[in-house]
Amino acid sequence: MRDLFNVPNDRRGTHCSKWDVLDSKFDVPNADGIAMWTADSDYPTAPCVLRAMQAAVDHGVFGYWTDNTDYHAAIQWWMKNRHGWDIDTDWIMTTQGLGNAIALCLDVWSEPGDRIVTFNPVYHEFEFKIRRAGRVPVQCPLTRDGDTYQIDFDDAQSRLDGTEKLLIFCSPQNPSGRIWSAEELRQVAAFAARNDLIVVADEIHHDFIYPGHTFVPYDVAVPDARDRSVILTASSKTFNIAGLKTGNIIIPDATLREAMAQRLRSLDYSPNRMGLEMVTAAYTPEGAEWVDAQIDHLIENRRIFDDAMNAIPGVHSLPLASTYLAWVDFSGTGMDFEEISRRVRKDARIAPSPGPEFGPGGETFLRFNLATQTYRVEDAAKRVQEAFNDLQ
Amino acid sequence: MRDLFNVPNDRRGTHCSKWDVLDSKFDVPNADGIAMWTADSDYPTAPCVLRAMQAAVDHGVFGYWTDNTDYHAAIQWWMKNRHGWDIDTDWIMTTQGLGNAIALCLDVWSEPGDRIVTFNPVYHEFEFKIRRAGRVPVQCPLTRDGDTYQIDFDDAQSRLDGTEKLLIFCSPQNPSGRIWSAEELRQVAAFAARNDLIVVADEIHHDFIYPGHTFVPYDVAVPDARDRSVILTASSKTFNIAGLKTGNIIIPDATLREAMAQRLRSLDYSPNRMGLEMVTAAYTPEGAEWVDAQIDHLIENRRIFDDAMNAIPGVHSLPLASTYLAWVDFSGTGMDFEEISRRVRKDARIAPSPGPEFGPGGETFLRFNLATQTYRVEDAAKRVQEAFNDLQ
Repeated sequence: MRDLFNVPNDRRGTHCSKWDVLDSKFDVPNADGIAMWTADSDYPTAPCVLRAMQAAVDHGVFGYWTDNTDYHAAIQWWMKNRHGWDIDTDWIMTTQGLGNAIALCLDVWSEPGDRIVTFNPVYHEFEFKIRRAGRVPVQCPLTRDGDTYQIDFDDAQSRLDGTEKLLIFCSPQNPSGRIWSAEELRQVAAFAARNDLIVVADEIHHDFIYPGHTFVPYDVAVPDARDRSVILTASSKTFNIAGLKTGNIIIPDATLREAMAQRLRSLDYSPNRMGLEMVTAAYTPEGAEWVDAQIDHLIENRRIFDDAMNAIPGVHSLPLASTYLAWVDFSGTGMDFEEISRRVRKDARIAPSPGPEFGPGGETFLRFNLATQTYRVEDAAKRVQEAFNDLQ
Repeated sequence: MRDLFNVPNDRRGTHCSKWDVLDSKFDVPNADGIAMWTADSDYPTAPCVLRAMQAAVDHGVFGYWTDNTDYHAAIQWWMKNRHGWDIDTDWIMTTQGLGNAIALCLDVWSEPGDRIVTFNPVYHEFEFKIRRAGRVPVQCPLTRDGDTYQIDFDDAQSRLDGTEKLLIFCSPQNPSGRIWSAEELRQVAAFAARNDLIVVADEIHHDFIYPGHTFVPYDVAVPDARDRSVILTASSKTFNIAGLKTGNIIIPDATLREAMAQRLRSLDYSPNRMGLEMVTAAYTPEGAEWVDAQIDHLIENRRIFDDAMNAIPGVHSLPLASTYLAWVDFSGTGMDFEEISRRVRKDARIAPSPGPEFGPGGETFLRFNLATQTYRVEDAAKRVQEAFNDLQ
């Protein structure tokens, strides 16, 4: 099954965010640039998902959909079997992916002008979504203890003025792949309770867990915090189907859930049937086997990439516990970010995600997406080494 | 190409709204009942749309989408070539289908408790959506002049109290298939201006226009009313792809448009790529040819069904100028609605849409969806005749 992840392909010209804007967005040549920014994968989705799509095409009728029983049961099965998390199917509400889910949480539980807490560096779209909704980000820096980020609850507390409404929390953390322990999650819940915050736990990367690490779902760690817990999950990254725009808001608490359900009813939300069929086909034993093979593939990609990065004097790729997103610190080179970025984009012809977008703590970093064919990772690793050749 | 519409198939067990709830919703046996309610079609979508989906399945990568240029150009081409309507591509905003679009209009241009105007009988979901959003429907009855519905502007005026915010207007009208003339649309615009209403013109049925009739887009009829015009269109009914949840809000006026755009940005709306690819493939010359063949097919279905209905004493199927939804008046039978409905559901084993759901004026009607294989229409026509056999 490992071979599935190394079949050469070309996503350029397919309306693909990641590959079709190299020139316009990054000033990297489309012809031989390598796209390593947007967090989707370059290899096809799982065969079981493709079979479900093929069956839909063969039937050919795409009318109105009814009955999410299978869809909900598949999600329930996945959370139980992959994450040890027991959920009721009526906790699940479906959105246009997790970007939309975060925006809906802001819409339901805050007002324009309200302050929203994040721990940074974190997924840059948190800040963008907060600002687009007219809310105010309160970015609390993580501290770094060697290769490990930590939450500084005292520092975070000092940044709050008591009017904050939500904590948008990334678990596992993107970037850096930090997996929070059950004890840390309990501290997060206590912090939220002290400050009367609803916790929106974005667990979208939860399926990419590397050997030796254990992911604990927020709701498993702090079941007694359900009166302020909202959990976001999606199969979009795990199965590379982000374009189908299907993600879930899972809310165990009936009062919180009804507030979101009322909003979705009034906006007449209903997911697209192809997304539902793909997820239902993905969250199966066969899908799980494909994900396990994908993780083996990513371990190999990480080994190649990290070895190459760490061989460059002053460059350090943080060891990943989770995610396929290498978080690489260039601070030891002594270069400013502009020069780091220029070398990677112009000399190596690679488009990574710029670290500063992730907020405080990301100033000297680049984030490289490794969910691609291994030959591309090898090529990219070599190019970055060459771009910093003068440091050798 | 006409053969494409008569290939036998079975939609039961495919998560299909129309066929999978006959028993539970209508007390009609699933085994040999005929579903004629929900407005989707039973035959497959156009070959050009299926080819686009097949190409997507073959590529197999479903990551994030970028660049709606082709999608917007296809919509622009369709509106120009099929409807004589010149639109700018930047007037287009994409939603999860038109149900969601109507809900978004309510969200942007009214508040809970506000009064919303409709002309009835009309698509029953207008009322449901208004109520789900906590708004108050003001249903203004159309008058009936023989087979033709008319808007009674004086009566409508008398029902308003000056606090109304929106007119949700169906053009062509569902049910009844009434196509409004340019002069009538001008009167609607004048009525809206007098009462300071934004007009949300739902033109979803605009592609089903029968010979001898001409559809005039609202914006073509009243371009000088753009400061209060919002037009909704979708390929979902035309191409039978409603399950993909992709519809458009088209707003020529910059101020109105920015209000909606801001709401979509704050909710982080982005359509699913499969819907975009299907619409782009549909709105082409080949798609247009398929639609023309579909209309020929529907003309035949209407002829068979209307002849059979009109042969039953006291039953009258209104001649359709548009839509595939036969609007059949049973008032001449002298029976109450319960008995009419019972005979059709229990004796004929057919599930049509109940007329009373469409509001004032629908009390003695049933709406039958004719967008199916001709053999099913023949079977249904015969069954209804038998159910009213005692009247012969």
